[in-house]
Amino acid sequence: MHVLLHTPNATAGEWHAALAAALPEARVTRWPDAPRAIDYLAVWKPPPELFGAAPAVKAIFNLGAGVDALMRMPTLPAGVPVIRIEDGGMADQMVDYVTLAVLAAYREQRVYAAQQREGLWRQRPYRDKRAFGVGLLGLGVLGQCVAAALARFGFPLAGWSRERKTVAGVRTYAGASELPEFLSRSQMLVCLLPSTPATRGLLDRARLHQLPQGAHLVNAARGDIVVDADLVAALDDGHLASATLDVFHEEPLPRTHPFWQHPGITLTPHVSAITLVDVSVAQIAAKIRRLERGLAVTGVVDRERGY
Amino acid sequence: MHVLLHTPNATAGEWHAALAAALPEARVTRWPDAPRAIDYLAVWKPPPELFGAAPAVKAIFNLGAGVDALMRMPTLPAGVPVIRIEDGGMADQMVDYVTLAVLAAYREQRVYAAQQREGLWRQRPYRDKRAFGVGLLGLGVLGQCVAAALARFGFPLAGWSRERKTVAGVRTYAGASELPEFLSRSQMLVCLLPSTPATRGLLDRARLHQLPQGAHLVNAARGDIVVDADLVAALDDGHLASATLDVFHEEPLPRTHPFWQHPGITLTPHVSAITLVDVSVAQIAAKIRRLERGLAVTGVVDRERGY
Repeated sequence: MHVLLHTPNATAGEWHAALAAALPEARVTRWPDAPRAIDYLAVWKPPPELFGAAPAVKAIFNLGAGVDALMRMPTLPAGVPVIRIEDGGMADQMVDYVTLAVLAAYREQRVYAAQQREGLWRQRPYRDKRAFGVGLLGLGVLGQCVAAALARFGFPLAGWSRERKTVAGVRTYAGASELPEFLSRSQMLVCLLPSTPATRGLLDRARLHQLPQGAHLVNAARGDIVVDADLVAALDDGHLASATLDVFHEEPLPRTHPFWQHPGITLTPHVSAITLVDVSVAQIAAKIRRLERGLAVTGVVDRERGY
Repeated sequence: MHVLLHTPNATAGEWHAALAAALPEARVTRWPDAPRAIDYLAVWKPPPELFGAAPAVKAIFNLGAGVDALMRMPTLPAGVPVIRIEDGGMADQMVDYVTLAVLAAYREQRVYAAQQREGLWRQRPYRDKRAFGVGLLGLGVLGQCVAAALARFGFPLAGWSRERKTVAGVRTYAGASELPEFLSRSQMLVCLLPSTPATRGLLDRARLHQLPQGAHLVNAARGDIVVDADLVAALDDGHLASATLDVFHEEPLPRTHPFWQHPGITLTPHVSAITLVDVSVAQIAAKIRRLERGLAVTGVVDRERGY
């Protein structure tokens, strides 16, 4: 059995060693070292020509939760299962990232930082959490883990998804028709949607203005769900109080992009939830063994749906 | 029955109306309106002469958790029970404040903010929480609530108190002899101690340097537990990475104090956990009714111990 890897350069050695150790029955090589028939691909942002070297591939593992980049590659072979990392240690990280952003907004960290710079001692009034609703845009594994964590802090929770879901402690909304009501009650909107043709550009001027006055946005999903110019305008006209962004249309975010220096934006370089090598490799090895025995595996992407 | 109130000016009307409504059997007045025998005092930072107007007072309610300022007043009558607010909605607020500070330090918010100012896209390595021990200095009601919240995020927890306590999920240390070991394992030190003769000046140069290199401090208790100059020195020499301070020797913090503009300090104006009028008033009214019936109440300050 032969597994071909393509990973970010910085971690290629780590992935290679870990996968070889977890799957001693396989030969593991790194692209472009692909000398013979490839059984499995484990890839992150592969070059288009890589798929040509694996005409008989049985499954393609995407080394991350978001498969949107892979789905858009014309060379991606049809009919081969694409399997994404499920959790892989990402849910815990996402819970930390979103909880930090929500508490920072609720406790007015940005206001107090400005007061500190001015040498101003001024206590802001107590805010009742009942008036600080958090809306989760996307109720997959990550969204549900985030909901469970935020529920413990007493924030009122709502969640929106393509199809209706039932999540304990979360008032759920579904489909385009229920999106305006969901947005109107989200003092804090947390975007955890996959990037698909249906979600790209979703957060445009009209939808951002359906959020209540003074609302906050967190985008830890994909940059292309937000219309950048519309977000900047909503911050500039005061409708939105802040945005915490971890993902962007182009990454790294170009040096000249207005997000960098915008006073209402907190920006991180796509670190909200990174794929952890050890957890992911254990998952891939277990799934390859199941596939070799003819068993079904979870995490197979629905190509029609896009995630 | 007569209850005499002394509160911060900004909230005097709110306290007065709430207490009068909660205790319709009492007459409630605000200092200096103290025309006849006073049965109970409900006070925050009262003037020294107030106690002279209440020679037959049965109990003194302190409108906050920290009684250190009251305990230091020479006019405080001996032999009268001093009763502090227990929780009063403060534990939830303290959990939010400390969780925000801990997640901000763990997720390197300060580093990413600096990178954003410089237009720098650079991902910091993943940090294993097992190497990010949180030490709780003080294991009272607030400390235990904070411990329960942080445990859910997977931080290794230690706690130190004057006398040994047993708290689920927390490795506990007690007394002066165990303080160095406790400090040495606290990547993040959270101070929730009362201010007493035994704790004032506790966090001095020597103790701050018993923390591991690169540690973070949160002080949400009392300013006088920290030696300000020693904290600034420990930040300046790089031993400490950051400090989040809500309390100070003098409040409001004087405009010329070096904390305001220190790049390693995040400062808030004593807002980590404010006394909520409705919760506190309900508590005081219930305790007055118990005392009138000759029953014991909780929250009575041990004057020897100082809290």
